[in-house]
Amino acid sequence: MIKIALDAMGSDNAPFSDVEGAVLAAREYGYEIILVGNEDLIKKELDKYKPVPSNISIHHASEVIGMHEQPVLSVRRKKDSSIVALGNLAKEKKADAIVSAGNTGAMVCSATLKCRLLPGIERAGIGIVMPTMKGPMVMIDGGANIDAKPSHLLQYGIMASAYSEYILGRKSPRVGLLNVGEEESKGTGSLKEAYGLLESSGINFIGNVEGRDFFIGDCDVIVCDGLVGNVALKVTESVAYAFGELLKRELKSNLLSAIGAILAKNSFRSIKRRMDYTEYGGAPLLGIDGVCIIGHGSSTPKAIKNAIRVAGEEVVKNVNQHIVEAISGRKGQ
Amino acid sequence: MIKIALDAMGSDNAPFSDVEGAVLAAREYGYEIILVGNEDLIKKELDKYKPVPSNISIHHASEVIGMHEQPVLSVRRKKDSSIVALGNLAKEKKADAIVSAGNTGAMVCSATLKCRLLPGIERAGIGIVMPTMKGPMVMIDGGANIDAKPSHLLQYGIMASAYSEYILGRKSPRVGLLNVGEEESKGTGSLKEAYGLLESSGINFIGNVEGRDFFIGDCDVIVCDGLVGNVALKVTESVAYAFGELLKRELKSNLLSAIGAILAKNSFRSIKRRMDYTEYGGAPLLGIDGVCIIGHGSSTPKAIKNAIRVAGEEVVKNVNQHIVEAISGRKGQ
Repeated sequence: MIKIALDAMGSDNAPFSDVEGAVLAAREYGYEIILVGNEDLIKKELDKYKPVPSNISIHHASEVIGMHEQPVLSVRRKKDSSIVALGNLAKEKKADAIVSAGNTGAMVCSATLKCRLLPGIERAGIGIVMPTMKGPMVMIDGGANIDAKPSHLLQYGIMASAYSEYILGRKSPRVGLLNVGEEESKGTGSLKEAYGLLESSGINFIGNVEGRDFFIGDCDVIVCDGLVGNVALKVTESVAYAFGELLKRELKSNLLSAIGAILAKNSFRSIKRRMDYTEYGGAPLLGIDGVCIIGHGSSTPKAIKNAIRVAGEEVVKNVNQHIVEAISGRKGQ
Repeated sequence: MIKIALDAMGSDNAPFSDVEGAVLAAREYGYEIILVGNEDLIKKELDKYKPVPSNISIHHASEVIGMHEQPVLSVRRKKDSSIVALGNLAKEKKADAIVSAGNTGAMVCSATLKCRLLPGIERAGIGIVMPTMKGPMVMIDGGANIDAKPSHLLQYGIMASAYSEYILGRKSPRVGLLNVGEEESKGTGSLKEAYGLLESSGINFIGNVEGRDFFIGDCDVIVCDGLVGNVALKVTESVAYAFGELLKRELKSNLLSAIGAILAKNSFRSIKRRMDYTEYGGAPLLGIDGVCIIGHGSSTPKAIKNAIRVAGEEVVKNVNQHIVEAISGRKGQ
């Protein structure tokens, strides 16, 4: 049976969301779920969900790496933290996949150190699954590696293409390189070199894309370095938040609008659902010799449940095998 | 009297928006406006606005640089284009400010070549004025220079701080450096170096900010390189567009929602107004020894009018003088 280790101390309101998400996933998907973290706290939380599914177990870890701790240092120092324990469980093959909604940098560091990288991969990248007007798209890298070389960008494209195909069900995913303009001549020297590499990679490379191509949905994978990807992701969250807040305030500002808002309630809900990142279940850390899903700190129990679902799918569909084949196939060309 | 030269061939539906914007601005602000472009086309368009304000004149330029032409090449080859003519008018002091909604790269190139840079400035940067929940903010650079060095980022911060203070009326503008996290230790070597430079610059540097700080409004200036800034700007436009489209579709999808939308009409309009970039009148190209405002290709007549207004303000408030003083004052420290 597939075994998934979950950081019970990960999310902003851990262990509540994490444990509830685990219980929901244990019931729905039947995976064996190992809750990693402070045993007393986890037991206390689990007590709320009686009967506790028999496919849930606990792996004690006494320490927690906080959201604002320095990734490399904290992983080195807190050897009994839940995040380091997750890396060890993956390394020792006691878990087929690991999931955390905790400190992203620390999880990247722990998973990369313990699992090592797949053959042919030089850097792991975070794949951010984003809603668009035509279904989900993967942006890679969301911030694992802020100083990406052209070869890293090439590998991101190949890895996210495999993820898009096998997990999101896209046939021959369209891969774009994020740049300041569509012309091949655009961008820094590094981007121009990445363009050439992607063009001869064998994947469905559609050329440069721009920030305006997010959310339109004419691209299945957007490749960029971790700095740009991190900014793009957070700007998106910021615009969506500001828009939502303004809408709420405005709709409460007068009676007619308030009545209008009540009548249009279902439409607002439908939009919220379509834009709801929790459906996609967190971000895969691609390139490691293992399966690791990183959730948002503000993950709800539903987001945790979906992160566990996606982790299981990545194991079942053997995404890493497809990545290795695509990378080595390209090399052999 | 202040003389402003406007690219009559600039916007996507030139000369219509450009000429109407010029007429509106000539009437409202009384500036002397020089329409630059094909004389016949401009005359034909001006005929619609009889009586044509006496403070509007025409400067003939036979060529047009298209939106997708390569900036440096097109400026070199099309010597009688409206964009090159604008640069010349600024250089020869026949115009106090120049405004174009045409090819951004070509305008940056023409303005920089002809006007040269202010003393102490190594690169011009595009300041993008963006709405936030607490008023307008300036992001710099929007894409003039995609390979920014730490000293360029420092100069961007100083220039946009002056713009925010003298044009947007912010006292002691809060300047943030766009990064992947708030801690001083975050980011590439180049960003860490820029952090140190900004910290000892004498402006109100508040440290690193993240993509999530856009639109919140706790920052008056966000400094970043042109690649990141360009992506952030276009992602913003993309999210706003997608959100608007989804809202429109959803609200038409059933009768109750449609009625609700009609009742809440004023609220939607109010949000649109608050998020309306056309109010801010285009993006200043900061760092050149002259005043240049670059408008969005899709500028409406109102956006053109506001771009002319802002160009005039930059002249009247002598923003360049303040920039030079801030730069040299820092150097003398």
